Amino acid sequence: MRQITHTLITNTNGPGLYEITVAVKNWCLKQGMEEGLLTLFIQHTSASLTIQENADPDVCRDLQDFFAHIAPENGPYRHTDEGPDDMPAHIKTALTQVQLTIPLRQGVPALGTWQGIYVFEHRQHRQSRRVVMHLLGD
Amino acid sequence: MRQITHTLITNTNGPGLYEITVAVKNWCLKQGMEEGLLTLFIQHTSASLTIQENADPDVCRDLQDFFAHIAPENGPYRHTDEGPDDMPAHIKTALTQVQLTIPLRQGVPALGTWQGIYVFEHRQHRQSRRVVMHLLGD
Amino acid sequence: MRQITHTLITNTNGPGLYEITVAVKNWCLKQGMEEGLLTLFIQHTSASLTIQENADPDVCRDLQDFFAHIAPENGPYRHTDEGPDDMPAHIKTALTQVQLTIPLRQGVPALGTWQGIYVFEHRQHRQSRRVVMHLLGD
Repeated sequence: MRQITHTLITNTNGPGLYEITVAVKNWCLKQGMEEGLLTLFIQHTSASLTIQENADPDVCRDLQDFFAHIAPENGPYRHTDEGPDDMPAHIKTALTQVQLTIPLRQGVPALGTWQGIYVFEHRQHRQSRRVVMHLLGD
Repeated sequence: MRQITHTLITNTNGPGLYEITVAVKNWCLKQGMEEGLLTLFIQHTSASLTIQENADPDVCRDLQDFFAHIAPENGPYRHTDEGPDDMPAHIKTALTQVQLTIPLRQGVPALGTWQGIYVFEHRQHRQSRRVVMHLLGD
Repeated sequence: MRQITHTLITNTNGPGLYEITVAVKNWCLKQGMEEGLLTLFIQHTSASLTIQENADPDVCRDLQDFFAHIAPENGPYRHTDEGPDDMPAHIKTALTQVQLTIPLRQGVPALGTWQGIYVFEHRQHRQSRRVVMHLLGD
């Protein structure tokens, strides 16, 4: 059994879901493992990871709206120094994932038919987001 | 160290929490490992995984009500083609888990006294849900 | 490749976020692995795990307020036998994490600059919380 780690950079430009499925799959394929365990870990507290339907793009827009509604920018926050979008971004991160672990099947993550892997950006300004990918297997 | 993967099928019949603790434990025991890491991954975007109290069944009903309230069927969604319960199902999935990773202890997942593992079904109609189980250990 | 498991106890005294980053890092360092995968699993259904900003303590207070608002003690719950804070605690646990898996980098979890690991206590009374730590690597 062996392991390998790599950091995937995703540049974002405002709130929304940025699909990284193809980049993740391709990196896994390059490692040439058959069976194993993939872990994705985002090194931020104002962007997160989620697995969602990648068929109808309206699903991602509706998700974004839901989270904007549940954690609004004008909420009664103490932490406002980093801008009105920062505390909502921390809340949205807490409500979703910083980490996803997915078994490999035939060298790629065993995703369901409609599942895509996304970086969920919660900040208004351009960001460069780091996702550590760790693969363990044979 | 060795690894093994298996898919557990759970048939659901409407929204709610379906406990899979016994099925998961039994599968782990059959693999005859002492120490290891179990990963459960659900291959869907309208059903999810959660660990909750399995003592009082009212906890599961209250959880279901909470999520129905926070992501109602009559919300202002763009994505309505697959029925009024589909977009709320995606939101509920985003708010809970698609994946759980649990250390093994003496061959079974190291759950706390009151913890049960559940498939959380968010759709109204009958479904057949696939949970990939991956076990790594000795 | 080898694995090791240990249980970290965190004593809590009322709702809030209790940082465990240093305890987790120190335990990892002691194991003397260079590369690997760390899994944290909390054995409770009324306290959870989260990764959040550990720079401004107001972030943790705002998070706690957000969750108190979204899952209030006076909600329409069936499950009230264990006190008014118990069902909200289960909901807050469902909305956050019971488990975190983080790749190691140079022997410690590959956290981002501002990321801290927290036990998120949701109950009013003193508790002793168990987090199982599992490390796998070389």
